[in-house]
Amino acid sequence: MPDFAKRRDKLRRLVRKTDADAILITSELNVTYLTGFTGDSSYLLLTNAGDELIISDMRYGTHIETECPGLEMSIRGPGVKMLEALPKIVKSAKVSSLAVETAAMTVAFHEEFTKALSDVKLVPTTGLVEQLREVKDKGEIAEIREAVAIAEKAFAVVIASLRPEQTEKELLDAVEAQVRLFGGECTAFWPIVGVGSSAAMGHYRPGRERRVADADFVLFDWGAKANLYLSDLTRVVVTGKLTSKFEKIYNTVLAANRAAIKAIRPGAIMQDIDGVARKVIEKAGYGKKFGHSLGHGFGLQIHEGPWLRMKEDRPLQAGMVVTVEPGIYIPGWGGVRIEDDILVTRDGHEELSIVAKDLGECVVV
Amino acid sequence: MPDFAKRRDKLRRLVRKTDADAILITSELNVTYLTGFTGDSSYLLLTNAGDELIISDMRYGTHIETECPGLEMSIRGPGVKMLEALPKIVKSAKVSSLAVETAAMTVAFHEEFTKALSDVKLVPTTGLVEQLREVKDKGEIAEIREAVAIAEKAFAVVIASLRPEQTEKELLDAVEAQVRLFGGECTAFWPIVGVGSSAAMGHYRPGRERRVADADFVLFDWGAKANLYLSDLTRVVVTGKLTSKFEKIYNTVLAANRAAIKAIRPGAIMQDIDGVARKVIEKAGYGKKFGHSLGHGFGLQIHEGPWLRMKEDRPLQAGMVVTVEPGIYIPGWGGVRIEDDILVTRDGHEELSIVAKDLGECVVV
Repeated sequence: MPDFAKRRDKLRRLVRKTDADAILITSELNVTYLTGFTGDSSYLLLTNAGDELIISDMRYGTHIETECPGLEMSIRGPGVKMLEALPKIVKSAKVSSLAVETAAMTVAFHEEFTKALSDVKLVPTTGLVEQLREVKDKGEIAEIREAVAIAEKAFAVVIASLRPEQTEKELLDAVEAQVRLFGGECTAFWPIVGVGSSAAMGHYRPGRERRVADADFVLFDWGAKANLYLSDLTRVVVTGKLTSKFEKIYNTVLAANRAAIKAIRPGAIMQDIDGVARKVIEKAGYGKKFGHSLGHGFGLQIHEGPWLRMKEDRPLQAGMVVTVEPGIYIPGWGGVRIEDDILVTRDGHEELSIVAKDLGECVVV
Repeated sequence: MPDFAKRRDKLRRLVRKTDADAILITSELNVTYLTGFTGDSSYLLLTNAGDELIISDMRYGTHIETECPGLEMSIRGPGVKMLEALPKIVKSAKVSSLAVETAAMTVAFHEEFTKALSDVKLVPTTGLVEQLREVKDKGEIAEIREAVAIAEKAFAVVIASLRPEQTEKELLDAVEAQVRLFGGECTAFWPIVGVGSSAAMGHYRPGRERRVADADFVLFDWGAKANLYLSDLTRVVVTGKLTSKFEKIYNTVLAANRAAIKAIRPGAIMQDIDGVARKVIEKAGYGKKFGHSLGHGFGLQIHEGPWLRMKEDRPLQAGMVVTVEPGIYIPGWGGVRIEDDILVTRDGHEELSIVAKDLGECVVV
């Protein structure tokens, strides 16, 4: 079991740097990260004085006992709303200024919240827990490895059983089924399966008309959810004619992918890694066809910090896990993106994803 | 294609009742409802003067052209954030007071938003579009019918192929696969599959240990997503010994389900429908074991208004679609919930779900 108490202590150190003497965690994934609880509609109160309390309702009493042994809980009865229960709880914890997560609270809730806790000063914060989540611990890395392995096994089966008549949606459903058969909860996000020109669209909803036989290649952007943690990969496979245009674009993207991965190490500046890939693509004359950033962190969420993109001048740290996913997109023709999952290690990096990416290995006709 | 322009006109009538001379729709599902656009990260600006503009980025230009023919769009270039683009757009639409959806805007975004639009008065609103979405039109009802039919067909296959060694998670995966094979996008929500005592937990995450053979009955709470619209059903099937305790509880829940459905008609007060079911359960001595409300609306979202629960004194209207889902839960033993999808018609109601629920038909041993 992860050391949740340690995570909460780290958060407390960040809260102490603010004006607040406690923090209320309202982001569902942040509650999971700090306690192990996987349900919803539950908040976590942490005071600088050391109190720790999960606030939930009757549906979840048993879950919390099982998932968060030893954690104090406040379970409200039926008909008692969160906002009716909170003021007493905050008062009895002797909190006079309370940090809140402004990115995990709607304006509507905040308004009622402010009324209900009228004698408490609210201190807006953003990204405190997200900052901790950027650097993964051993257990998290182990689960991400598992999520990558499940995704890769599922992909191998889908590719081995690829047929010309399959639609994009059928391939998407096949990925979903295989991820589950290999022990994953489900896919990590709604996968992209783009045949030919569909692969030019960054965010594409796989359809029921387009079939493998309708073009010469298929792009898959998929991942698996192991237990709670995710993976995120992209490969393009050649299912028809291998043209010289495709070959040039593919090998450019692959070179960008490899060069960027090679540059990953602790201390490397995030925007510089993006720059390494971008330079390779620009040099080949496709600079304007790479319209997104190079990569992002992932873990409990599929997109989370750190960000490998322009204007990010922070250094990478050991324990960060990022995608590296350069791409070239030609509207009407299609696109190529090659995405791997990379762990920043003390000495440099480790490629967590190992599914084949040399062009020769991606021809499946 | 639904009459999106009519929906936008209806919304405009609601906006005119506020102080605002325009509204910015930031809820993703509300944008879908008002335009047909199915992507994310896009907002809709509607002015009382009649301007209509969808604000998106380069990933979605083609999608919007396809999904929202005729709708004006503002596509910002790469590197231009939504908050950088908005002020100019709002200014050129001559908006001086702008309604916002406070339940679809985080405090963090609102803060930046207020700064960026410093010369515009923001008018907080909640639930304007949600109010329209409560009453479904013909196209929406047709798609909900399809979502119910897909869910029922999927369930029939899962039940026909039920085996004693299957785990809850395997059954959940089977539901997912069958929903897709029958043409659904995916399940409508993470299904509940609870064997025996697991069925006592309202929100339960199906596990990999518990198998069908481990108890005498299994609860399924599942639904399908057709294209955009959902369905939501619950059935309990007997897979082992049929005890008199189960029989009594099952038939009480079934009687409550039937009595509540019978009471559904335009003009009936929502809390009264809840009361009808609750009375049946109380009379049988299980009042304290029915710890949730009777039902809810659904459509684009799995839980949306109207709400069949205490303290809801509004009348039902023709075109509303609600679940009716009484339940009795005994911790340690299990639970029974029977959930149907009901359309309020001009004359009364129509049961959209028809999967068998008489006890005799739910014994599958």
